[in-house]
Amino acid sequence: MVDPLANALGAHFAHHLERVERGLDDIARRLHGPEPLPDAMRYALLGGGKRIRPVLCLATCTALGAQAEDALAPALALELVHTYSLVHDDLPCMDDDDERRGRPTLHRVHGEDIAILAGDALLTEAFLVIACDERLPHPTRTACARHLATAAGASGMVGGQVRDIRVPERSAEAFRTMHAEKTGALFVAATTMAAEVARSPQPLVDAMARFGAAIGEAFQVADDLLDNADPTSAHEDDVNLVALLGREETLRLLARCTTTALEALAPLEQHAYPLRALARAVQDRVPQHHAS
Amino acid sequence: MVDPLANALGAHFAHHLERVERGLDDIARRLHGPEPLPDAMRYALLGGGKRIRPVLCLATCTALGAQAEDALAPALALELVHTYSLVHDDLPCMDDDDERRGRPTLHRVHGEDIAILAGDALLTEAFLVIACDERLPHPTRTACARHLATAAGASGMVGGQVRDIRVPERSAEAFRTMHAEKTGALFVAATTMAAEVARSPQPLVDAMARFGAAIGEAFQVADDLLDNADPTSAHEDDVNLVALLGREETLRLLARCTTTALEALAPLEQHAYPLRALARAVQDRVPQHHAS
Repeated sequence: MVDPLANALGAHFAHHLERVERGLDDIARRLHGPEPLPDAMRYALLGGGKRIRPVLCLATCTALGAQAEDALAPALALELVHTYSLVHDDLPCMDDDDERRGRPTLHRVHGEDIAILAGDALLTEAFLVIACDERLPHPTRTACARHLATAAGASGMVGGQVRDIRVPERSAEAFRTMHAEKTGALFVAATTMAAEVARSPQPLVDAMARFGAAIGEAFQVADDLLDNADPTSAHEDDVNLVALLGREETLRLLARCTTTALEALAPLEQHAYPLRALARAVQDRVPQHHAS
Repeated sequence: MVDPLANALGAHFAHHLERVERGLDDIARRLHGPEPLPDAMRYALLGGGKRIRPVLCLATCTALGAQAEDALAPALALELVHTYSLVHDDLPCMDDDDERRGRPTLHRVHGEDIAILAGDALLTEAFLVIACDERLPHPTRTACARHLATAAGASGMVGGQVRDIRVPERSAEAFRTMHAEKTGALFVAATTMAAEVARSPQPLVDAMARFGAAIGEAFQVADDLLDNADPTSAHEDDVNLVALLGREETLRLLARCTTTALEALAPLEQHAYPLRALARAVQDRVPQHHAS
């Protein structure tokens, strides 16, 4: 079954999606180093995926009045970081997953050592892509690197993964903190890097950060709702928001996150249209009667 | 026994060493995120080490006429990258080392999952440190990020590690390529980032790159000579340059690398003095009759 979010992205953002895939292909083609390293990096990078983070980055950039092409390097860097995080999260000592997107995980194909190193190289490549992008003025490149590193590091995505695997407390509040770090931070990087590229004034950068955080949380809450609807896809001992809050309350949380996202878009007025569509597509991923 | 190189660094570069340790302490203090992540990062970062890469960076910067303080962020970033690489290299699926610098390796203390994530976060922090350094103009920050990412990634350090663990060919030439990637690349980053900070003209950047590559190779060749002199420190199935070339020929290679390093310093004239001392200290790490 095709994810309805993938459908919506394809319908509303086909041009951004196509540009992202082409950009990733370009990166994949120029990767080098001793095999099987570049091969492993390509396997992870080109293995499908909705590309929601880079599409969000490009869509935000155009909504702010700049060219999507100008945000391409930060968008691709986001997907490189997201890809490396999946490779490391799948490892036996973490989530121990054998499959991802219908194919064997990278460590099942190339071994744990290569999977760890390919992840390391993908993360490194993300910062190279931003540093080398000649379309962007130098201050924008350093601002994007700062947003990306903040979002990806110890107080962002990596911190969220540590909380996920190691922090015993399992309250709904703890889950939301973990989601904000593990998923939300990269969404915030997507929208704030776009705002930097568009040279938006600080209040607009801040509004885009709120939008990114809210759509990131909505995305993750929807994920929990979908996982819970399909018990075969969840690990046996997985506790998630639905188990903690109940389905109705989790749907209400999803609706609240979507409202917060839409409200953050107010300063964009009619230019917000595509971003509103994206926020609604994230909510509509959960195919049912929305809670009031 | 104290490493004679550590002694030499302490004697010639006490001020740089002290500044590096203080800078690492500052980074360690402001690390945050859910425990045990920052704790694990600190354990790895503050666990000793000769700090030769950051010292080389600061010493090169002053030899080029700029202030050491201006090169501090790139120097600390180098040590962050080097530290993460040791944490990942020590993992059971790589070199499977239980000890490093006289203490249990990070995965023995905190588990493999935290060791992988702490490494990921240290690598990310390296790029954050460069991006956020307000002493450096933006173009210098992007140039440094580019040098560092190139040196650390698939065609540099990570590539060298892949070659080390996976490439079966064991000729002296293959070893030298592996060393150039795994060790040399970060030494090149040390000297070229210093040249960028000092705004050196391109020919001088290139000369510093040659110096970095030569001193990096000398460092690694000396390491092989020392490992070979102490069979208890080597893994049973380790083949190294000494086994392939013989001790005399390896000593001659060390002497040639040192000569190449010293020759690359010619454009600096008398300002090269501290860098010459560093090159000689690397060679004198091997305590014996030098080959002619």
